[in-house]
Amino acid sequence: MSAAAPAAKPGHLGIVGLGMIGGSLALAAKRAGWRVSAYNRTSRHAREAAASGGIDHAVARISELGGCDIIFVAVPISAYGEVFKELTPALAAGSAITDGGSTKREAIAIARQQLGDSCRRFVPAHPIAGREQSSWQAADADLYLDHLTIVCADGCDADAVAAVDRLWQDAGARTCTMTADEHDQTLATISHLPHLLSYALVSAIGRHGSSKQLLQFAAGGFRDFTRIAGSHPDMWRDICLTNTDNMLAAIAWYQKELEEFAAFLKNGDGASLSARFAAARALRQQWLDTLEK
Amino acid sequence: MSAAAPAAKPGHLGIVGLGMIGGSLALAAKRAGWRVSAYNRTSRHAREAAASGGIDHAVARISELGGCDIIFVAVPISAYGEVFKELTPALAAGSAITDGGSTKREAIAIARQQLGDSCRRFVPAHPIAGREQSSWQAADADLYLDHLTIVCADGCDADAVAAVDRLWQDAGARTCTMTADEHDQTLATISHLPHLLSYALVSAIGRHGSSKQLLQFAAGGFRDFTRIAGSHPDMWRDICLTNTDNMLAAIAWYQKELEEFAAFLKNGDGASLSARFAAARALRQQWLDTLEK
Repeated sequence: MSAAAPAAKPGHLGIVGLGMIGGSLALAAKRAGWRVSAYNRTSRHAREAAASGGIDHAVARISELGGCDIIFVAVPISAYGEVFKELTPALAAGSAITDGGSTKREAIAIARQQLGDSCRRFVPAHPIAGREQSSWQAADADLYLDHLTIVCADGCDADAVAAVDRLWQDAGARTCTMTADEHDQTLATISHLPHLLSYALVSAIGRHGSSKQLLQFAAGGFRDFTRIAGSHPDMWRDICLTNTDNMLAAIAWYQKELEEFAAFLKNGDGASLSARFAAARALRQQWLDTLEK
Repeated sequence: MSAAAPAAKPGHLGIVGLGMIGGSLALAAKRAGWRVSAYNRTSRHAREAAASGGIDHAVARISELGGCDIIFVAVPISAYGEVFKELTPALAAGSAITDGGSTKREAIAIARQQLGDSCRRFVPAHPIAGREQSSWQAADADLYLDHLTIVCADGCDADAVAAVDRLWQDAGARTCTMTADEHDQTLATISHLPHLLSYALVSAIGRHGSSKQLLQFAAGGFRDFTRIAGSHPDMWRDICLTNTDNMLAAIAWYQKELEEFAAFLKNGDGASLSARFAAARALRQQWLDTLEK
């Protein structure tokens, strides 16, 4: 889809939510020439961002962003309904809306409910970049650089899709398209599942009687494996609850593999264990090699 | 145990296996004043290490290390039997033997079988430090610095324990004692299980039809979660097969937590999910804080 990007000038970007995701797009878009206005629930943060030049203008109401060329919704999905509701009456005819959330079917369902006729202007997106931080202080103009952003263009107005695609490319991302179903299933496996697995290990250790004793002996492998268990609990609750079917399927699929590993252990089948470990190591290395290209 | 370290001068250290673990102890001990001789199966690597000054002397036979004050066995556990067998007839009365392996009950069982009367001179140890590399090129004099080394002193001669303890402290490690049973159970939970979980995810993705499609959307969280799936397959097969009972218990314990998570998902119980995620995040942060002290 990257090839089809229009040559229009950068326009006026409105951002709802100046956390790490919204803040990083603000900085990247501003660098690319966009004018950036932003709303943040804690208004002080938006005013500070404006005072420091990170954005052009802080607004006090979401509805004030209705005239922007694109409005980027970067809040927890549990707040989408309220945001869309406030936007709808203020939305200019040519505006597009996009978001940066980790699940897309639910985002579309909320948009259909709240945006009415404007729901064809909502082009959901998901930048495949993130860190476990979640504040404006963690915003980084380079966060999206050379990362993929998935755009779910199904059923959207073509000009809105083109505008959103252009915005993400201006932020340095490569874009690709997917249906919301494909997106939610793919991400359940490659992102949401590992987060759940990482949380589950630390949670189990915490509920174990002797977590302090155990953690004394945790080393670098444990630190990296559990880095994503440092992610925001409410955000990940929302991701889980808006992708439940795919998450449950991914857990079952993973447990099957784990049970096969356990069977190899029970049977002392070192050859099978070693073969699975070697294949995993090789696949991971192959993936790392593609990243370096 | 650190307080009981003797004040003896650094002596002569013999190392069997110049991989990352053996090589790093070689460099650290040499820096602390030890004389270091080493054997490596691929003799060229030991000769190169000697030529570059990384060790003092490369030997062609394991038995040539029998007169060293301490002999450090840093080979896969599947090779311990052979190493001990070659060492036994050459072993000086005052020598101590130690190792750096990740499981200890099996190491002791092999020592009992092969070292005969000298098995009280074998003081198993496990430095809690490591990376997924495994070669002399990855050796680092600082690898053990400020890391814990677990020493399993049960049933060993006190002077041998003191000598081994001193060696690890000279390498910059803090030492603590544990029985082999405690060691193998603790490490199954905090180290061996995460490795297996990480391997299982990448293995499942590899056996999935569309791994290339999936891995396009893998980001930093996936990279860190799976870093330990880059570890050496045969080494981890050996760890699994020499700690099977504890590994199976750890898998079952983990699966229980994962099934509780799945039940929360099924029931749409966001409060419980969020509470587990928040507790995990807090526990991990608490652990990170202790590391920085």
